[in-house]
Amino acid sequence: MCQLLGMSCNVPTDACFSFSGFSARGGGTDVHADGWGIAFFEGRGCRLFHDAEPARTSVVAELVRRHPIRSSAVVAHIRKATQGRVALENCHPFRRELWGRYWAFAHNGNLEGLQPPRSPLFRPVGDTDSEAAFCAILEALHQRHPAEAPPLGELVALLSGLTAELRRRGPFNYILSDGEHLFAHCATRLSYLVRQAPFGPAQLLDEDVSVDFQACTTPSDRVAVIATQPLTRNEAWTELEPGQLVVFRAGEVVATTGCT
Amino acid sequence: MCQLLGMSCNVPTDACFSFSGFSARGGGTDVHADGWGIAFFEGRGCRLFHDAEPARTSVVAELVRRHPIRSSAVVAHIRKATQGRVALENCHPFRRELWGRYWAFAHNGNLEGLQPPRSPLFRPVGDTDSEAAFCAILEALHQRHPAEAPPLGELVALLSGLTAELRRRGPFNYILSDGEHLFAHCATRLSYLVRQAPFGPAQLLDEDVSVDFQACTTPSDRVAVIATQPLTRNEAWTELEPGQLVVFRAGEVVATTGCT
Repeated sequence: MCQLLGMSCNVPTDACFSFSGFSARGGGTDVHADGWGIAFFEGRGCRLFHDAEPARTSVVAELVRRHPIRSSAVVAHIRKATQGRVALENCHPFRRELWGRYWAFAHNGNLEGLQPPRSPLFRPVGDTDSEAAFCAILEALHQRHPAEAPPLGELVALLSGLTAELRRRGPFNYILSDGEHLFAHCATRLSYLVRQAPFGPAQLLDEDVSVDFQACTTPSDRVAVIATQPLTRNEAWTELEPGQLVVFRAGEVVATTGCT
Repeated sequence: MCQLLGMSCNVPTDACFSFSGFSARGGGTDVHADGWGIAFFEGRGCRLFHDAEPARTSVVAELVRRHPIRSSAVVAHIRKATQGRVALENCHPFRRELWGRYWAFAHNGNLEGLQPPRSPLFRPVGDTDSEAAFCAILEALHQRHPAEAPPLGELVALLSGLTAELRRRGPFNYILSDGEHLFAHCATRLSYLVRQAPFGPAQLLDEDVSVDFQACTTPSDRVAVIATQPLTRNEAWTELEPGQLVVFRAGEVVATTGCT
């Protein structure tokens, strides 16, 4: 299995603190050492860093821990390979373009027997169940709405149906984003918190690192952090219910639905 | 305008030496300071680094200069903005998936009046003529071959026709790769060299850096380097003719055609 990390912010925010704790689990405090990746959305742009090395020791991951990249939406992943060999093309998040926007997707779980459609427009490059699921989702969204994105409510309803279908094949926790919205689905385990004023100190669980957010924020800042397991020891994380699909935008929850 | 760098190798090779000289032109020895990017193909995987900062001073570019990433095909770009603002989404190379492989594309030139097709499958995310041209090429390739890639000869003929059409709109030097083949089109200026045994020393034009390739290669290694302007002072670079489309594979030229 793997672990997921997501961030949604109302002002571009760096992920150094959260990624430090998260990436420690990639071969340090936990066993997810078969690669890692992170997508940073900056406006319409989307920057990717990937590596088939453990996140704990990867030189590229070290850059991501130390160099603040300010982003409105982040999708990150550390991998413990189930399907697909340890290789760059199998590192999440995967990225494709749909409706003139980049979409990034990362998955924690294991889907059995997923076959790509015939002559699909979105075709996996690697050999993970996860990239196949991402392609299947984009294919279905594009088939239904070839020209433009539907309104959010309709998109969530569509995603919810597709998610319910895919979930029959096995655990399917995921984070999906187009840079504006961040969709988080809990199949077995996913938690989140919203940091907003009044800010206080936060202490990582996996590293001896703490930050006083009071000192580096403005009162209107708001950041949602989503993770397979809570990243900090002294903040109140909300556990999602299995089957919940939660939509974040600008650091807050804007929609919640069940995938049935 | 911009500058291009490409590499095609028969064994995975790092681009530290070439990228050091090339990136110096991104705000140092030359004016291409409006962003940069590089795509490294590793097997089927494709790793991207991008930044809207000048390549000369970007922290991410510094990582690329210092950290050897071994790759069989590289596409890199430094930007001097003509169309499209200075922003991450407008930094080349652009990447899309077609036929289950990633494709990376970078352009030097300026195309006037290029309109995307209606309801395209490949849609620009940013607002450069370059990304629009890349999407137009992929769209046309997909329309003609929706299921699988055609044989190389047919692909080159198709590309040649598309290139001739796009070139009517202005200068259109480009490098395109799917990780196996690297297609280099010269509209106004593009040079290349093939490094192979017997290897010797090479001295960058833009930095006081030299490498003795004899000391860090095996006799069977072969690397083709393609660049808008030669990168070294003591090697024999071949200037492409305007209109030439050259295909590299595993460090050697495997096809040459004119785009008429």
